[in-house]
Amino acid sequence: MTSSDLQEQLNLKAMNLLQEDADKIEKLIEVQMENLATRYCPLYEEVLDTQMFGFSKEVDFAVRAGLIHEQAGKQILSRLERNLALLYEAMNNKENKE
Amino acid sequence: MTSSDLQEQLNLKAMNLLQEDADKIEKLIEVQMENLATRYCPLYEEVLDTQMFGFSKEVDFAVRAGLIHEQAGKQILSRLERNLALLYEAMNNKENKE
Repeated sequence: MTSSDLQEQLNLKAMNLLQEDADKIEKLIEVQMENLATRYCPLYEEVLDTQMFGFSKEVDFAVRAGLIHEQAGKQILSRLERNLALLYEAMNNKENKE
Repeated sequence: MTSSDLQEQLNLKAMNLLQEDADKIEKLIEVQMENLATRYCPLYEEVLDTQMFGFSKEVDFAVRAGLIHEQAGKQILSRLERNLALLYEAMNNKENKE
């Protein structure tokens, strides 16, 4: 294997790992979205914030270690942040109606 | 550069980055240790716990991405945890004396 093959393989692996972790947070967001109307768990917000913080440290490390481009890291984070913002907006709207 | 040179270089870079971050937390612990007798900031514990969580996510990612051995990751984390435990012990002893 050449060094550029190895670099490509490591970069791909890193991106797949990050995507896996992003998917888990995405799943948490979806579950909470679905449960808005029925059972709301007040700890969800804290759990999501903690997960997002941990994930941002992972992404940051992957960028610093030269495994992913800064731009790719920003993209994966901002997608999650957007979905999280939608969830919080929905939660707020629900509270205001109650 | 051969692929094994590259792998070695990336592993070393990852380990240096982790050591850098561990040193920052170590510094936070030292500062709080020195300040035990004078000014105690109650938020310190929370800040340290958050930093430790973020750092453990970085270490975990580095292991999963194949950049450092699991054993090396455990060592760097347990060293920090030991120092953190010493700090909390000192904080407790101080509280009991007051």
